[in-house]
Amino acid sequence: MIIVMDHQANDAHIEAVVARLARAGFQIHLSQGVERTIIGAIGDKTQLKNISLEAIPGVEKVVPVLQPYKLASRAFHEEGTLIRVGGLKIGGDTIHVIAGPCAVESRNQLLEAAKIVKEAGATMLRGGAFKPRTSPYSFQGLEEEGLKLLAEAREATGLLIVTEVMDVRTLPMVAEYADILQIGARNMQNYFLLREVARVDKPVLLKRAPSATFEEWLMAAEYIMAGGNYKVILCERGIRSYENYTRNTLDLSAIPVIKHLSHLPVLVDPSHATGKWRFVPAMAKAAIAAGADGLLIEVHPNPPEALCDGPQSLNPDNFSSLMVDLKQLAPALGRKLS
Amino acid sequence: MIIVMDHQANDAHIEAVVARLARAGFQIHLSQGVERTIIGAIGDKTQLKNISLEAIPGVEKVVPVLQPYKLASRAFHEEGTLIRVGGLKIGGDTIHVIAGPCAVESRNQLLEAAKIVKEAGATMLRGGAFKPRTSPYSFQGLEEEGLKLLAEAREATGLLIVTEVMDVRTLPMVAEYADILQIGARNMQNYFLLREVARVDKPVLLKRAPSATFEEWLMAAEYIMAGGNYKVILCERGIRSYENYTRNTLDLSAIPVIKHLSHLPVLVDPSHATGKWRFVPAMAKAAIAAGADGLLIEVHPNPPEALCDGPQSLNPDNFSSLMVDLKQLAPALGRKLS
Amino acid sequence: MIIVMDHQANDAHIEAVVARLARAGFQIHLSQGVERTIIGAIGDKTQLKNISLEAIPGVEKVVPVLQPYKLASRAFHEEGTLIRVGGLKIGGDTIHVIAGPCAVESRNQLLEAAKIVKEAGATMLRGGAFKPRTSPYSFQGLEEEGLKLLAEAREATGLLIVTEVMDVRTLPMVAEYADILQIGARNMQNYFLLREVARVDKPVLLKRAPSATFEEWLMAAEYIMAGGNYKVILCERGIRSYENYTRNTLDLSAIPVIKHLSHLPVLVDPSHATGKWRFVPAMAKAAIAAGADGLLIEVHPNPPEALCDGPQSLNPDNFSSLMVDLKQLAPALGRKLS
Amino acid sequence: MIIVMDHQANDAHIEAVVARLARAGFQIHLSQGVERTIIGAIGDKTQLKNISLEAIPGVEKVVPVLQPYKLASRAFHEEGTLIRVGGLKIGGDTIHVIAGPCAVESRNQLLEAAKIVKEAGATMLRGGAFKPRTSPYSFQGLEEEGLKLLAEAREATGLLIVTEVMDVRTLPMVAEYADILQIGARNMQNYFLLREVARVDKPVLLKRAPSATFEEWLMAAEYIMAGGNYKVILCERGIRSYENYTRNTLDLSAIPVIKHLSHLPVLVDPSHATGKWRFVPAMAKAAIAAGADGLLIEVHPNPPEALCDGPQSLNPDNFSSLMVDLKQLAPALGRKLS
Repeated sequence: MIIVMDHQANDAHIEAVVARLARAGFQIHLSQGVERTIIGAIGDKTQLKNISLEAIPGVEKVVPVLQPYKLASRAFHEEGTLIRVGGLKIGGDTIHVIAGPCAVESRNQLLEAAKIVKEAGATMLRGGAFKPRTSPYSFQGLEEEGLKLLAEAREATGLLIVTEVMDVRTLPMVAEYADILQIGARNMQNYFLLREVARVDKPVLLKRAPSATFEEWLMAAEYIMAGGNYKVILCERGIRSYENYTRNTLDLSAIPVIKHLSHLPVLVDPSHATGKWRFVPAMAKAAIAAGADGLLIEVHPNPPEALCDGPQSLNPDNFSSLMVDLKQLAPALGRKLS
Repeated sequence: MIIVMDHQANDAHIEAVVARLARAGFQIHLSQGVERTIIGAIGDKTQLKNISLEAIPGVEKVVPVLQPYKLASRAFHEEGTLIRVGGLKIGGDTIHVIAGPCAVESRNQLLEAAKIVKEAGATMLRGGAFKPRTSPYSFQGLEEEGLKLLAEAREATGLLIVTEVMDVRTLPMVAEYADILQIGARNMQNYFLLREVARVDKPVLLKRAPSATFEEWLMAAEYIMAGGNYKVILCERGIRSYENYTRNTLDLSAIPVIKHLSHLPVLVDPSHATGKWRFVPAMAKAAIAAGADGLLIEVHPNPPEALCDGPQSLNPDNFSSLMVDLKQLAPALGRKLS
Repeated sequence: MIIVMDHQANDAHIEAVVARLARAGFQIHLSQGVERTIIGAIGDKTQLKNISLEAIPGVEKVVPVLQPYKLASRAFHEEGTLIRVGGLKIGGDTIHVIAGPCAVESRNQLLEAAKIVKEAGATMLRGGAFKPRTSPYSFQGLEEEGLKLLAEAREATGLLIVTEVMDVRTLPMVAEYADILQIGARNMQNYFLLREVARVDKPVLLKRAPSATFEEWLMAAEYIMAGGNYKVILCERGIRSYENYTRNTLDLSAIPVIKHLSHLPVLVDPSHATGKWRFVPAMAKAAIAAGADGLLIEVHPNPPEALCDGPQSLNPDNFSSLMVDLKQLAPALGRKLS
Repeated sequence: MIIVMDHQANDAHIEAVVARLARAGFQIHLSQGVERTIIGAIGDKTQLKNISLEAIPGVEKVVPVLQPYKLASRAFHEEGTLIRVGGLKIGGDTIHVIAGPCAVESRNQLLEAAKIVKEAGATMLRGGAFKPRTSPYSFQGLEEEGLKLLAEAREATGLLIVTEVMDVRTLPMVAEYADILQIGARNMQNYFLLREVARVDKPVLLKRAPSATFEEWLMAAEYIMAGGNYKVILCERGIRSYENYTRNTLDLSAIPVIKHLSHLPVLVDPSHATGKWRFVPAMAKAAIAAGADGLLIEVHPNPPEALCDGPQSLNPDNFSSLMVDLKQLAPALGRKLS
């Protein structure tokens, strides 16, 4: 921790900072330059969370030396983490594709979608039973009935099930059916929910919130890991920028950046990122070329009839065609498609 | 609803759109120009939520004519809404200042803070008993003990209590103590929580999420209103921009914009917006000049010792001085400070 | 300058950094902690601009201690700068309003606009003779004819003239007519233009670019000051954010922040910021309450007929009404309207 | 053009809009719904640029039907444009890599860099002779001496030269030496410069400004094309977002989006986008997988000694290694590396 004093800071200001740090048990290194005084503080950083140095007069800024996450950091675990679920491994050479509709709408729709994505090569089925819709007047999901249909689709196809949990009260029910629990972008900083999924023995797919920094995203992962669940899979799904021709701005640099800062696997959701099916295949290929561990793609048997996110859903033909492309692409990157 | 077809759309594409709209019960107006075909659809817009026209080939874009919120719109209620709570009215000529610490830390700290803000002229006390902290290692709040201290402070000073509710499970407990329930910025789109506060007979202070558009913010208000609770108070607290010298970018245009689009009262939180106490007074005055119905300001008896948000908290002197300025400013704007 | 090494940095990495700094003439302070090595470098910071420490293996980040601007900094000049032009002083207690149309369109339009804004209390007239339009097919300005009309309007009303210079080739011509040279937001980092206005003995009104940080803005001012022209007036005109209901997001925190970091005066342009005339008065009042030294406001005799920016232009009645409000507001803030 | 009236618009308001449109020569379609009146206007859109409908009372919004660019649009030229320069074709199956240092620093540095990138497989050499630096105290380029060195490097290696033009006065000189003229991100909306490069018979590499929308970027291309130069190559180089761990946020969706909206070729500059050499290879591969027509990559013989952008420059080994990867990747995408 480095404290930079402002150009008008006097001795009393400096002493106040030094005294406060000493009281919190830090060792102090004082460097009085011509233009600025700089104070280095060495010690137990967790102490620093509970003091507000920038509120002391004369302090210009406080610069942290270490990142605030530990368990999620690459320093904690030099090797990339491999997450095992239902016989699959996420985070290694194999690229996994999780595909399916935005929402479970009906038995027919879901079973058809499951069959389509299975045949094209996906290993997991996505589909929402509880839907976080911007409008209270939109379709809100089939709830437990939807979960049961997901389980039926798993039975029929062997696909693992990835579905979103939105509420602590329904978490036990969702956890009963899901293979992987999804935390949606809007819940990335719903700390009560994070604490609860930390207690469940299932992998958690943690989407990046639309305005989360890499650090905030890793801090959300840290909440889950600090609570005891180390099986966190990150998923980049586009961030909010000024450009609104696309629904969000897919930040593919998230892949090499997270691989550098953390040991956790990273997936990419090009469907929510672009919001338009037309741009999904190019972004899916780019994600793989950038090193993503897998993809989350919306596929609907008949997108114009979708109750949710039709504009960004691939139809069966487009999805199959993308999977053919990915199969060709993976080996050129030293990877394989499962 | 207006559908603009792309320049390559053919008759079959156009017919597919027309047929889909007709099936959903819409009246159609077709306008075939030289460069583009445009389709106007008149009818029950709520139907449209459940079809995905942009997924039909040949559709370039779908332009909504009406905003998606109803109950929150100015068209629904031409007069500004006045929210009555504990003898106060929020939304009229009187400006209310809600002040207090970020978190309830101890009995002494809270009672002292309450006394300070009461004397300076605040009418409500803020203070968090449950704290949504970015780090799992930071102070997370005193929970029910904190709520009890808030009630004690109300007893001692007559200030009304505004405190955040973060979890559906603790909502009944928080509602028992609070006069106004705060929904924090990170929970603005926590729809399960919104649905539950919609059932409570208390005003809800709904903060704008750091990357929410005006429309998304009003849709969150709509969730609460559609659930039966019309007492929604909006609060601008800064949005996320590329500029990070300030913690967030305070979007004061939110005030005249929301007053134009909606009938709900709007408060401003300059503390979270700037993140630095030094800039809070200027932004507080600007908020009032822009027409805000009140302010939410962090005040701590001793900011350097604050367990949370010390850098953005005013100390007692700075807060008193700001209140003096506001008392002088209000009449020049045809308002009064309560 | 503080260099933070990464957790895998070895002795050779550290020595490489130390050697490079020593070669550039810096004194070194080495602090080897348990988790990180930190290197402090004291010396002539301008040297550092020409080395790329972050390219040395093992370097995690380089944290500057001082801001990169000098002449524009508050430390260079503790008192606020007062800019004198044609008998007026910008930067003191008096608030100046610069008003007029986006573009000079015709003799009638301009003289009428000048008369209107003069009568309402403005002290300067704005109007573009060269227009930076997004479309090559839009009206591009009357050029020298426009400048002559501005001079005629000055003659007729006594208002000083503020007009934009866009091109080094026409700078001498613009400088002949203008009292204050405006650098538009899109040219804030047009360094060749900045270097040339630095050589002219006229005040420069420097608009913030739509995605410039405070630091980049002050660095643009530094270019002009380093070139010899200290008469720089800053102007906040809204930044680009994800919210597009307003044309830009007016960042009023720019006022107290720039007053803290710099000694230069700051104006606010609420017209370009909001893009909608309806929201201009509230934002103009907020700017003054936040401490702005003045306003730049678009006023057109007949906005629906404006060749440029009609939607954000006040008509004569709305402008007069705003000026009445500002006259009432200023004394409550200890200021006066000229 | 569709005009949506607000819910309080009366007959007089509607008539005012209709009259204004009729006067400008438009055909009118009036649709009076229960909640809103909508006015469709058919005619010469360029007329609309010079009227300000949103300034007429009762108008809520004006929705354009067509994009504002013509020559740059895919509708104008269905086939992708192939730009020929010095025997190369940009925009077809072949991927071109333009590499070299940020700035020309010395004869040795440049010739060495040219040799390195040539051997690794680049077909063009980049290097700035005029440098747009944020600080007036940083190295500003070797100017004409730098251009001469670029010409010498071309002579020595056969690489074509891409270099930035920043000023209308030095454009003739730059055009004499360069094979492709680069317009930097900060000059994307420097319309006087755009008009001048429009008159030069050389391809123009037009970088996206850090906060430009796709539409604004294409409008900048339109300026050049409307001026007579159809040889425009677009280059995505990262946009400004709230995330600042990377220098910018690389928006790879720009590739499929621009390919959809326009016929112009698109390159990607992963160096400026990420700002950190470590992340450049992943983003370079992703760009190619997303369909980019080529790459612009900063390579320096010795990055820690670079006078400019060292932290984002690849060293010779990393560049060679990336080129090997790209050669393997291209065929899997049905492309080839030149």
